Amino acid sequence: MSDGERRSSINQILQLHEGGKIAISSRVDLDTVSDLEKVYTPGVATICRNIVENPSKAVRYTAIPNTVAIITNGTAILGLGDIGPVAGMPVMEGKSVLFDKLVGISAIPILIDSKDPQEIIETVKKIALTFGAILLEDIASPACFYVERQLQLTLDIPVFHDDQHGSAVVILAGMLNALRLVGRGEEELSIVINGAGAAGLAVARALVARGVEDIVLCDRAGAIYEGRREHMNEFKDEISKLTNRQKRKGSLADVIKGSNFFIGLSGPRLLSEDMIRTMRKGSIIFALANPIPEIWPTQALKTGAAYAIDGRFLNNALAFPGIFRGALDARARTIDDEMKVAAVNAIVSHTEGDQIVPDLLNLRVHQVVAKAVKEAAKSSGATATYDMKGVLIHS
Amino acid sequence: MSDGERRSSINQILQLHEGGKIAISSRVDLDTVSDLEKVYTPGVATICRNIVENPSKAVRYTAIPNTVAIITNGTAILGLGDIGPVAGMPVMEGKSVLFDKLVGISAIPILIDSKDPQEIIETVKKIALTFGAILLEDIASPACFYVERQLQLTLDIPVFHDDQHGSAVVILAGMLNALRLVGRGEEELSIVINGAGAAGLAVARALVARGVEDIVLCDRAGAIYEGRREHMNEFKDEISKLTNRQKRKGSLADVIKGSNFFIGLSGPRLLSEDMIRTMRKGSIIFALANPIPEIWPTQALKTGAAYAIDGRFLNNALAFPGIFRGALDARARTIDDEMKVAAVNAIVSHTEGDQIVPDLLNLRVHQVVAKAVKEAAKSSGATATYDMKGVLIHS
Repeated sequence: MSDGERRSSINQILQLHEGGKIAISSRVDLDTVSDLEKVYTPGVATICRNIVENPSKAVRYTAIPNTVAIITNGTAILGLGDIGPVAGMPVMEGKSVLFDKLVGISAIPILIDSKDPQEIIETVKKIALTFGAILLEDIASPACFYVERQLQLTLDIPVFHDDQHGSAVVILAGMLNALRLVGRGEEELSIVINGAGAAGLAVARALVARGVEDIVLCDRAGAIYEGRREHMNEFKDEISKLTNRQKRKGSLADVIKGSNFFIGLSGPRLLSEDMIRTMRKGSIIFALANPIPEIWPTQALKTGAAYAIDGRFLNNALAFPGIFRGALDARARTIDDEMKVAAVNAIVSHTEGDQIVPDLLNLRVHQVVAKAVKEAAKSSGATATYDMKGVLIHS
Repeated sequence: MSDGERRSSINQILQLHEGGKIAISSRVDLDTVSDLEKVYTPGVATICRNIVENPSKAVRYTAIPNTVAIITNGTAILGLGDIGPVAGMPVMEGKSVLFDKLVGISAIPILIDSKDPQEIIETVKKIALTFGAILLEDIASPACFYVERQLQLTLDIPVFHDDQHGSAVVILAGMLNALRLVGRGEEELSIVINGAGAAGLAVARALVARGVEDIVLCDRAGAIYEGRREHMNEFKDEISKLTNRQKRKGSLADVIKGSNFFIGLSGPRLLSEDMIRTMRKGSIIFALANPIPEIWPTQALKTGAAYAIDGRFLNNALAFPGIFRGALDARARTIDDEMKVAAVNAIVSHTEGDQIVPDLLNLRVHQVVAKAVKEAAKSSGATATYDMKGVLIHS
């Protein structure tokens, strides 16, 4: 791109964002007094009374069951880090645009002015009645884990941290497709994941749940192994008991030797050509750091990788819209492992030819994911049975 | 209305509410990869960085400055009382429809699961960065007063409890127009207000601020006077020092004698024909209890009132949309008395012929109110000067 082209592109982006990218709009008319009397007083009281008599009517007569909160405190925005919730708002609005355009969900960014997990939890609990589901977004680890677990325990609507599970679903789908493309089986996998933040830990857990045995997770301090003392937290402790059963120690360069699959969820240029040369021949490289990957795919391929992509090819937006659509349609109380696996399989089954994953602007993919997730929710028992605890929006 | 007509009308109302009355929608296209790259990653990072460098850019490039939170805990919904926030949601959605259709503001209902003022305050403070202003709605008194005052003290965006100030603005405008219609002056007013909830107290305060001297406020226990002990709270104490300077005691029937203006913000059928007969000849009756007024207007007129209306003729929706539009356009930090007085005067100036207030579906009224409120904000000093405290959305 020339300087002129770059400026013109930036100007287009700025212009597009003028006034923000989302708005709350009315789904009904307000042209006549009769409209007003139905939409507002006195007619609206009929609906209120209906819900008082039968709380489950809120599912039918309010926007609640189609509304998702996008909760962030702006501590881990894209590749930008802790820039605060207001500076992160354009990302949240972008996510809301995707929800609307891809699956017709109303998604409301809610900016939380706190870095304290307990304060975030209390705030979300107090406003949760407004929503059919909660998307946690761009909250730094380990706070994101505490917040998610506690909210999942206390709320009876789905709570889903996209940076963990959305990433894991898309990466697993990409992995299965990459194996197909290079003609290799899951049983041959020897995986190194670099980065033990939200995405890294979630991908490791999802791989373990899938039965993949040879996984080493690295962070800044090198390989994570059971019993490591420095730079640990309870979530790394947990994963240290499920991965790296040989308790390999050392840096990324040390443990990557002999592996055949690299998943980077870390930072720019952390994977060198030399490291790739120590991997098995014909390895697969997912260098997903944003916006500058651990290694550029062309460089990885030149160095002997059989398959290499960067983060632009594996976008979470392929997973979360359909997952939420399916969960809301099923009136699920949670998004459980069966639903996530169903999403992975739906994405894989919808991948064609030499694609690594389907085109996310193809609305059909999101419908397929939604349907699979909805069915999984019903068979896994994640759907609600109506009980009288508080005012429920499930039916 | 026949039974058949009533059923058909109820069916129309139910049908209209299917799926809720509002949705978050995208203001931008998402058809091509180029759209996606501008709306979401990687293009959106340009906007985030812009805001990091200059926080006031959030005013220009996010939806925040045009977004209002409609905060309720559902403890005082219309004439229905404490039905909880979910059953109150249709009213909040109705308000959001009015905001969108009348003045193009994005208004998001936020349902708070708490009756404790301190919890409500803490919750709103934690999410306030998301919004350009806060509308408090249908929160029972006295909690509503604590919540409003505390939030006004701590937030640098407008916080406005509609049941208080929206009501006061519309009632004052109606009062001025009623005086004109019956050919009487403000100096002759001898007012009894029945009901010392949010609206009653706010109307009394607004009348005092206007210089009206002869006001008696009644609640369930009768006239409120300085020094009364039973059924008091700090807000009634305050108003007792500003009204009823003769310290009249007794029931509504006792203190209404000799007055010439009744404002009912209480309950059904609390004003009798006998009471009206003890008022001065040719009195004005605002019987505003919802949905059944203190007395039906036809009955009041028959009994000798010169002018009588019920609540259907004085709708808050005449005031709050323009007030918020004006406050947001001015980037006001607060909605002060000057702005409310400007709204009253704008409504009065826009009233024609024998109307008590203008038609609220006439968009021009809201534009006139917005303009007057914006100008008042600028001259009263309610607008923000940019400071570096936190991330500001004012410019």
